[in-house]
Amino acid sequence: MSLAIDQDSESKTKPRLSAALQEELTALLGDRFTTAMSVREHHGKGEAYHPSAPPDGVAYANSTEEVSAIVKACAGHGTPVIPYGTGTALEGHTLAPQGGITLDLGGMDQILRVSPEDLDCTVQAGVTRNTLNEYLRDTGLFFPVDPGADASLGGMSATRASGTTTVRYGAMRENVLALTVVLADGRVIQTARRARKSSAGYDLTRLFVGSEGTLGVITEVTLRLFGIPEATRAAVCSFPSLEAAVNTVISIVQCGIPIARCELLDDWAMKMICDYGKLDDYVIGDTLFMEFQGSEASVAEQAEMTQAIAAEFGAGDFKWASKLEDRNKLWEARHNGHYAILAAKKPEQHVMATDVCVPVSRLADCIMATKEDLLQSNLNSGFIGHAGDGNFHMSIIANYDDPEENRLAHEFHDRLVRRAQDMEGTCTGEHGIGSGKIDYLEAELGEAVDVMRAVKRALDPDNIMNPGKMLRL
Amino acid sequence: MSLAIDQDSESKTKPRLSAALQEELTALLGDRFTTAMSVREHHGKGEAYHPSAPPDGVAYANSTEEVSAIVKACAGHGTPVIPYGTGTALEGHTLAPQGGITLDLGGMDQILRVSPEDLDCTVQAGVTRNTLNEYLRDTGLFFPVDPGADASLGGMSATRASGTTTVRYGAMRENVLALTVVLADGRVIQTARRARKSSAGYDLTRLFVGSEGTLGVITEVTLRLFGIPEATRAAVCSFPSLEAAVNTVISIVQCGIPIARCELLDDWAMKMICDYGKLDDYVIGDTLFMEFQGSEASVAEQAEMTQAIAAEFGAGDFKWASKLEDRNKLWEARHNGHYAILAAKKPEQHVMATDVCVPVSRLADCIMATKEDLLQSNLNSGFIGHAGDGNFHMSIIANYDDPEENRLAHEFHDRLVRRAQDMEGTCTGEHGIGSGKIDYLEAELGEAVDVMRAVKRALDPDNIMNPGKMLRL
Repeated sequence: MSLAIDQDSESKTKPRLSAALQEELTALLGDRFTTAMSVREHHGKGEAYHPSAPPDGVAYANSTEEVSAIVKACAGHGTPVIPYGTGTALEGHTLAPQGGITLDLGGMDQILRVSPEDLDCTVQAGVTRNTLNEYLRDTGLFFPVDPGADASLGGMSATRASGTTTVRYGAMRENVLALTVVLADGRVIQTARRARKSSAGYDLTRLFVGSEGTLGVITEVTLRLFGIPEATRAAVCSFPSLEAAVNTVISIVQCGIPIARCELLDDWAMKMICDYGKLDDYVIGDTLFMEFQGSEASVAEQAEMTQAIAAEFGAGDFKWASKLEDRNKLWEARHNGHYAILAAKKPEQHVMATDVCVPVSRLADCIMATKEDLLQSNLNSGFIGHAGDGNFHMSIIANYDDPEENRLAHEFHDRLVRRAQDMEGTCTGEHGIGSGKIDYLEAELGEAVDVMRAVKRALDPDNIMNPGKMLRL
Repeated sequence: MSLAIDQDSESKTKPRLSAALQEELTALLGDRFTTAMSVREHHGKGEAYHPSAPPDGVAYANSTEEVSAIVKACAGHGTPVIPYGTGTALEGHTLAPQGGITLDLGGMDQILRVSPEDLDCTVQAGVTRNTLNEYLRDTGLFFPVDPGADASLGGMSATRASGTTTVRYGAMRENVLALTVVLADGRVIQTARRARKSSAGYDLTRLFVGSEGTLGVITEVTLRLFGIPEATRAAVCSFPSLEAAVNTVISIVQCGIPIARCELLDDWAMKMICDYGKLDDYVIGDTLFMEFQGSEASVAEQAEMTQAIAAEFGAGDFKWASKLEDRNKLWEARHNGHYAILAAKKPEQHVMATDVCVPVSRLADCIMATKEDLLQSNLNSGFIGHAGDGNFHMSIIANYDDPEENRLAHEFHDRLVRRAQDMEGTCTGEHGIGSGKIDYLEAELGEAVDVMRAVKRALDPDNIMNPGKMLRL
């Protein structure tokens, strides 16, 4: 029995779920393999505007050995494998446009080792960042990378995620020490040893970080950890203009203040989060959310320097929070940004999350030109940015089933990406290419994409690992 | 006319410098292509114990376009290309065991762009780190990675170098933002845009950082820069034992003190540098050289915390230096370590520089077991380490032409590498694999080395890029 569904013409060239593979997977996993339509549909949807594309079956794996066996079985039939963590990817990474088996790693939720003396740990790929941080609390350590969603650490590795704390602690690129990966033929490798640094061969860790499931399945992740700082202080302040807020960020970065978080929200985004959270104690204006970490003396010094810079750019309405519950409340408002936007949209609308990143010196230019474009485009959107990294998002709320709205939103996004690329920036600071940005990648890196294709063909000659993502082969 | 020299049996299978290629390169470069024996011999020697292996010719390139043309010409004849910066590699990276053309990038010495507002710059591959830092002095910025030698930034990228400041600022892995690379067929790619972070496709930057010239020739490097800190303070102190010094380092790292440099020298190494520099104001004992950077308040706090930790482990004879010339004098002693050792060896002797790196929690075990082994082996060596990273070097002085001495030194090194690997460490923290550690890489990463081979074959199918290094194909 074949469950092949005609989704697009390319899919017809791929073997879909054959009766033989279905038998093999059932023998391997019992009821942890299913072809139930509701489960397939659940796994075939992204969080964003992409049309859904369900797989032909869903396999739940609990160990690297099981992942290896599943991939081997699929490879034997040439059937696609789509790794799945929490389904919070924003560029359609977990869709199955060519059908195949979604490999759900949510059950791989074991924290395998924490070494406080080495400031590192190893987790299974399905462990989420909040689960890890709750587990770590008593050790005095934490894992800093914070993309907003409570994503799995395997998924965060696969998309090279970053987030609010990257300006201080780096992205997944800097914080993954080693990976266990199941290759396209089912073989299992360890990309590196646990030493802090190494010059032993090609940097396979960094090759798989950001590979979006197209080269293999990440099953275990060794991560750097950090000591919870002695003191932490958060601040919010508002500015007379978006430009003033952006210029404050640029000055903070250029002065070398080791700010731990530096988030920009414009008046549109502030209205969203205040409406959603029923918050009446924020100014609806162009705003920075900031956090300082370190020793008491260092935090005081950072806060003082930052306040002086912000004051020069006309900042006012400073709110400070030092106690954990006050800081959590303050950051909850910021972290609810995405959900506030989802709550504000009408049922027929969806959200496209843009993700450009430019050199910090170009950030004001890029944001101001984009703001002008936004005003002229009459689209429902605004700015939320990891401004310290030069990275900002615009969530464009539109009815993507309406051809005209769809066209306007995509044309706006096209102009935004081109503007960022013209400023030596990138189409994606942290969300990845997925199925949504394949052409932008070509425009951005040209012939380098041929090198990526050569690597892909070398490691996955039959193109079964998350096909249709990142690269057009 | 062929200049083929019988160096080893494998070399016979490679086309060497044919008359046609010689004509092409001469037409392209004029007198910047030479087959003069003295120039070939100069380029065929490493800084270490490896037997020399001169290329068949040396080509001096001044631009990416010239590198591309040279590589294309060599590719047309299947002739090996060996990239060469300053010749300071320690694992035989620049030797030509299969003959071919050494591509000397020393003439690519232009600093192409410095953007103080973005804290980054782009340089040609032949610019050395000291040249860059001298150029930057007036901007208030500096480039931190410091491997000791005044190496070229292209070479430092190619070996994934690190050094004394990596404990604070990271290695080349963390500090290269983008590369221009000439591929094995002469095509030129840019690996990434200039944005601070990106999720756009496979991380080709990190794939080429540490590829040791085996995948392509790095011709331009975009680097992160840092503001020169407001305050800097250096310190030296000595300990009652090597173990006490190592345990001090482990405590400093585990306390999260953002120490900028933390270098360990044992009594053997201290005697070397004091003899070499005619220094009589240091104790000949197990010693830490440290540096603290930041605001005045932060430096004072770091220094105080560190001194308290060191005192617990019995440290004494503290020397402090704050003024630039005093700090330079203090660090000059440490930086002369390698040259002190070269000066101490007899003419018939050479130096093997070991380079293991282990998780910091295992550093004391690894060093103490190795010290015991050293005492029993009766070899002339000692410890110099970037202890904060878990990385340490032993320079083994021996007559490597004497089969017995050669055997003893290599057996000691074998045991050292195996000891580090058994502790989840690596055979190389920063020197690379080159021609000296190919078997250790296999032992360390097993099947992952097959993935490296697949990548190598995909990007350099004819194996002309620095053949015989890193991988056995």
